[in-house]
Amino acid sequence: MSLIVAKFGGSSVADAPSVLRVAKRVVEAKNAGNQIVVVVSAMGDTTDELLDLAQQISPNPPGRELDMLLTSGERISMAVLAMAINDLGVEARSYTGSQAGLITDSKHGRARIIDVTPSRILEALNDGAIPIVAGFQGVAQDTKDITTLGRGGSDTTAVALAAALDADVCEIYTDVDGIFSADPRIAPSARQVPRITYDEMMELAAAGAKVLHLRCVEYAKRFDVPIHVRSSFSDKEGTFVIADLEDQSKLVNLSKQGVIMEQPIIAGVAHDLGDAKITVTGVPDRPGTAAAIFQAVADAGINMDMIVQNVSVHGSGQTDVTFTCPRDGVAHAESALRDVQGEIGFEDILTDSNIAKISLVGAGMRSHPGVSANFFKAIADAGVNVEMISTSEIRISVVTRADDAKKTVEAVHTAFGLDADGQAVVYGGTGR
Amino acid sequence: MSLIVAKFGGSSVADAPSVLRVAKRVVEAKNAGNQIVVVVSAMGDTTDELLDLAQQISPNPPGRELDMLLTSGERISMAVLAMAINDLGVEARSYTGSQAGLITDSKHGRARIIDVTPSRILEALNDGAIPIVAGFQGVAQDTKDITTLGRGGSDTTAVALAAALDADVCEIYTDVDGIFSADPRIAPSARQVPRITYDEMMELAAAGAKVLHLRCVEYAKRFDVPIHVRSSFSDKEGTFVIADLEDQSKLVNLSKQGVIMEQPIIAGVAHDLGDAKITVTGVPDRPGTAAAIFQAVADAGINMDMIVQNVSVHGSGQTDVTFTCPRDGVAHAESALRDVQGEIGFEDILTDSNIAKISLVGAGMRSHPGVSANFFKAIADAGVNVEMISTSEIRISVVTRADDAKKTVEAVHTAFGLDADGQAVVYGGTGR
Repeated sequence: MSLIVAKFGGSSVADAPSVLRVAKRVVEAKNAGNQIVVVVSAMGDTTDELLDLAQQISPNPPGRELDMLLTSGERISMAVLAMAINDLGVEARSYTGSQAGLITDSKHGRARIIDVTPSRILEALNDGAIPIVAGFQGVAQDTKDITTLGRGGSDTTAVALAAALDADVCEIYTDVDGIFSADPRIAPSARQVPRITYDEMMELAAAGAKVLHLRCVEYAKRFDVPIHVRSSFSDKEGTFVIADLEDQSKLVNLSKQGVIMEQPIIAGVAHDLGDAKITVTGVPDRPGTAAAIFQAVADAGINMDMIVQNVSVHGSGQTDVTFTCPRDGVAHAESALRDVQGEIGFEDILTDSNIAKISLVGAGMRSHPGVSANFFKAIADAGVNVEMISTSEIRISVVTRADDAKKTVEAVHTAFGLDADGQAVVYGGTGR
Repeated sequence: MSLIVAKFGGSSVADAPSVLRVAKRVVEAKNAGNQIVVVVSAMGDTTDELLDLAQQISPNPPGRELDMLLTSGERISMAVLAMAINDLGVEARSYTGSQAGLITDSKHGRARIIDVTPSRILEALNDGAIPIVAGFQGVAQDTKDITTLGRGGSDTTAVALAAALDADVCEIYTDVDGIFSADPRIAPSARQVPRITYDEMMELAAAGAKVLHLRCVEYAKRFDVPIHVRSSFSDKEGTFVIADLEDQSKLVNLSKQGVIMEQPIIAGVAHDLGDAKITVTGVPDRPGTAAAIFQAVADAGINMDMIVQNVSVHGSGQTDVTFTCPRDGVAHAESALRDVQGEIGFEDILTDSNIAKISLVGAGMRSHPGVSANFFKAIADAGVNVEMISTSEIRISVVTRADDAKKTVEAVHTAFGLDADGQAVVYGGTGR
């Protein structure tokens, strides 16, 4: 008997027929001999509708009250899902984040989980009932106020509960079949990846892959919770996210595919069209000026991603500093920089929202020195100009024109044999 | 400085503009130097919409889950009202029933309040903030599950909080100006009553008056909480519901009208079109048969109101038993009676949903022996046939044809000088 935490997103419970379908699926999993805990997001567009209502009332509502408002969304979905399951003859009991023991700090709208005390969930499981837990929400340890976890919150709730309950797997049900080697909407030959490591998944998430949020993968890695990303519309096995592709012992009872012996060098190609590029020109080339620029941007609450500083042109005493940040932070960042322009003494600020970031991610690149060369050759052969470069141990990212994003992703995807008809090339690695 | 608990119903917070209007009103009350605690119902039709959703999912949802679902309604209204008040520069904090300390039994859908521990509300008041409390809901003492209080729940929440906080008054804001001497929709000459006793109000509520629910008045009487029923659309003084019209000391700081010296004999005329009449014919006239009939109906969960047993026709050994009950319980009551027909040995069951109950209520009738005579003369003069009669110490009720309801109410209303132009007659009593 496995203990499964299964999370269903808003699109999986968008309306009454969807709720009934999810209920059937949950009951089947239970009747197959598993213990199951369900985590559920708000139905369909509920959260957006509640945000609309808040906007009609107040331009800038207090975080405490916005959290109180938004948490009504999961309250609705979890109650109706529990009703639907009960109608199938299996007892189900819904629990708010607070009732399920999701203890957070008190940072409304982006609370961090600091403890999980799921005694009522365990009680329900012991009674043979299916607990249905509201995703995305918790209760603040100090103020006892209701909090929300922010982006990726429901996935994080599911992983955190799975960790606290020592579950065998955390299933994340979504509207795609799993993690893909690229976004199938721009690279039609993308294929589903059967296994991926936490580290690769985190790099992909940070690089723009949308299926799993970085934060929930970090949590899963920390507590070594296997994640199974799969479709709520089919029974197909999806993608398992685990610590180490060579140690698949945790999947023995979970995956029909068994252990996969040969591992790919590359997990996938991600793209991100949500960033913009800001270049600060004519920066005096002396210690501390770059730091002053980054401090100004950070103080404005803007996250910088890639950063490049040009070599100072000999004799000019000046340099350019370029960085990327989320597109919706550009105006804010620019105004923060204008405030310190006199003090720092740079010349100008150029902004460019017409960029794409393309990233190649794979744990195998640690031990395969040819990866970078192959990557840049593919981009050059596609006639795409690279504007910025950054790397981590298992990722290479470039910035290109936004218009070149599709071409670049497809070229790289093909070059690394990731296309659906080129799997022989993919599973070639013995170096890891 | 007064401590006021103010309850706003769903029609008072039906949409964003209404919420903003209520916020302004609450802030004005606070700025006038009062401490104020707000109790709020779900916005407009929210509760009905949630019930619709539940019906799409399950024909007979578990009470626990239905309560979880419905309580999301007040969660929305209280959060947006808190936002609106915050925007007016006064801190407001919303609290669920559970957070506000409304402890109930675990009878889902009709939970009884068994304790109120409003420590977080007192904390908010001490901080100078306005607490906004979800009406209609609480938390079960034993199971810790979320409960709803059923009909009249939000009014009861307000009165219970007012009692626990030792508030000076519980203001119930509604869409009419207060309690009327009859329903103005069928008796246009009805006038607003400035004062009424708990006992009179309970009789009126039980007799079909819709403004206040019997249960909340019972609670107010038990803890001697003055209720002020008033319009959320005007600043006019409404109706005060208090223990004793001769002891108005509690109203000194609340009512601009001061003490009213002369008290009316009659508080008002109520009508109820929601009942039906069931007659069981040919009942064997021996001890225990009536009891067996009433037991069968009670076991079916049907509340009987008026009961009449005809005198046995000499020699026949049989009698008829007639009672009234809510119209939606008729089919259920009839089927319960059919089940015991053989055992009891009665002849037949006649049902009649085409009736009205008209009631005259007034504490003054205790000491004014002419009231009954005047009442029946007015009805006879109007040409209306009386089918059943029942009385309490301060109420006389009759059953008539439904079509005669308006005529009867108007005739009685006029006969007792209750019409708006006949107040001199009303305030004639010195006998109390």
